[in-house]
Amino acid sequence: MVPKVVFGEGCFDQLTTILSSHKKDKAPFIYLIDDVFETNTEFIDKINLRFNDKLIFVSAAEEPKTSQVDELVKDIRSEFTNLPSGIIGIGGGTLLDLAKAVSIMLTNKGSAADYQGWDLVKKKAVYHVGIPTISGTGAEVSRTTVLTGPVRKLGINSDFTPFDQVILDPELTQGVPKNQWFYTGMDCFIHCVESLNGTFLNAFSQSYGEKAYDLCMEIFLKEDSLSDAESRAKLMMASWHGGMSIAYSQVGVAHAMSYGLGYVLGTKHGIGNCIVFNQLEEYYGEDVVLFKKMVEKHGIEIPQGVCANLTDEQMEIMINVAMGMVPLWENAFGEEWQSIVTPEKLKELYLKM
Amino acid sequence: MVPKVVFGEGCFDQLTTILSSHKKDKAPFIYLIDDVFETNTEFIDKINLRFNDKLIFVSAAEEPKTSQVDELVKDIRSEFTNLPSGIIGIGGGTLLDLAKAVSIMLTNKGSAADYQGWDLVKKKAVYHVGIPTISGTGAEVSRTTVLTGPVRKLGINSDFTPFDQVILDPELTQGVPKNQWFYTGMDCFIHCVESLNGTFLNAFSQSYGEKAYDLCMEIFLKEDSLSDAESRAKLMMASWHGGMSIAYSQVGVAHAMSYGLGYVLGTKHGIGNCIVFNQLEEYYGEDVVLFKKMVEKHGIEIPQGVCANLTDEQMEIMINVAMGMVPLWENAFGEEWQSIVTPEKLKELYLKM
Repeated sequence: MVPKVVFGEGCFDQLTTILSSHKKDKAPFIYLIDDVFETNTEFIDKINLRFNDKLIFVSAAEEPKTSQVDELVKDIRSEFTNLPSGIIGIGGGTLLDLAKAVSIMLTNKGSAADYQGWDLVKKKAVYHVGIPTISGTGAEVSRTTVLTGPVRKLGINSDFTPFDQVILDPELTQGVPKNQWFYTGMDCFIHCVESLNGTFLNAFSQSYGEKAYDLCMEIFLKEDSLSDAESRAKLMMASWHGGMSIAYSQVGVAHAMSYGLGYVLGTKHGIGNCIVFNQLEEYYGEDVVLFKKMVEKHGIEIPQGVCANLTDEQMEIMINVAMGMVPLWENAFGEEWQSIVTPEKLKELYLKM
Repeated sequence: MVPKVVFGEGCFDQLTTILSSHKKDKAPFIYLIDDVFETNTEFIDKINLRFNDKLIFVSAAEEPKTSQVDELVKDIRSEFTNLPSGIIGIGGGTLLDLAKAVSIMLTNKGSAADYQGWDLVKKKAVYHVGIPTISGTGAEVSRTTVLTGPVRKLGINSDFTPFDQVILDPELTQGVPKNQWFYTGMDCFIHCVESLNGTFLNAFSQSYGEKAYDLCMEIFLKEDSLSDAESRAKLMMASWHGGMSIAYSQVGVAHAMSYGLGYVLGTKHGIGNCIVFNQLEEYYGEDVVLFKKMVEKHGIEIPQGVCANLTDEQMEIMINVAMGMVPLWENAFGEEWQSIVTPEKLKELYLKM
């Protein structure tokens, strides 16, 4: 788990103090920042750059890739003689996952693709700090960093993946576009539904999942009296608890199929989950009904027909990627999942999306 | 926060594996264990002692003291040349707090009493593991270790206090006597009420506090259909979330007054909170009513008249100790707390108990 966390409106201002005890001589802090902030001088000016510290702006338009991680690591190694004092990721799930992966790959040999899987990382990562600017993915708290590699989309799951420090400042999520707010928040809601309905559930995950679920219901469906600030703070906590829930359980059908969409079409994780979940009433009944109410209440449009023009080959890859997520299917349906989940069934579902 | 945790029935069996990577040459693991387990050979046999590892059985009949910590540290230092590989605390809040304090005092000079307060500890503690065998105090997750010192009962609150590893095995809480189960569970419930009704509350603490509160309601009042195993697992999580809630907020009236009882009469924390909370309807209205229902439902007897025979001097000390808990009163009533909380008022309340 993340050993240190600060929370509260404006707590981003504590960053300089927090980093000061981790500064090593001649070793820079490297900031990986969502490039939407590149022109936000008010925000950037709050970052106190010292000596050779460096800002790297990264687009979150695409899901993070192992090749992108390798490239960033190569650039950092060639520019600096010393290992960085720390990596600070500022942004949504993409930036946070990149920061986690880069910090690992600075101390471990080879390509990030070599470490996709469970507990393959052997050396402690460089000190890394996560600062979410959008809530829902749970990337700030999770033990994984999901990357698209040459052969699969899969996380680097390890004890060295979690951030050493997280800064939860709800103020930073101001200004997120409405659609993105919704899709990313729904990533959390869907996590929780999958975890709470999964066969891997235990009392630990259940308690976190229930809290995140309740918070999502409050934010997206029930409470019209929440102020924007309250809503932002609560969604930040929903993301946190949702991430904790899946740290000790697993996601399910929506995530497995969304990985297929992401791999073939590059569909972003949040919207991908929404596209899939919208068609899963058969498996997640009442929760899909609630989801549709949330969609309606906030006037969100869920894309339709995204798989209509796939080639046979693309469809086959999509199905293979989805079916490859064995632990997710086992969580959803138990060991006998293959009696329920067939290529034909997945094709039928994909064609509805 | 605690960086590593395992959860689940039987996960205590992972202890040997978990410790193995922390073993240093010639440096023992020291186990501080509640002496109720001394004759429980089945349990003790599960602990895999190697080389010079040592079991120390400690009575939890009294609240932990700074002098007791100093004594334990002195004994360990005189018996072993090397600093221990780790301290493992097995028991309830008393044993967990002792384990945290001993691990700190093995690397910091002077007496434990010198470190009662906030952020006075300067050196990293010895690696320490917490294994609760009763649920409710939140000591397994908190950033403090509450000790009775020569001049006050106060915690050593520091970044080095939390356990490096916690093992949450609900099986270990089997066999706790009913009264103790109730008092300790109520410690959690009362934490949550105080935190949720406090002025220091933020969305972080609120989300944890609400979950712990809901779990307590489920366990102690609402759900008669829970199996013993489910109930144990849920109470373990309630304790965890309750501890997290107060890590970022504060307790209130019941804890402040209970500290007074503990200091003068040696009343244990859990039962002390119950004795006090029973008389706090004026401040915590509906929650005290719910508490009384729980007491009735489980046929628990809350001691009465505990302050009836106090000398004037004892009463004065009790009131002084309680009033000294400034942050707790500020949390309960805001900065103007002294207009509400007077020595006369506290005396009136104590005499009801």
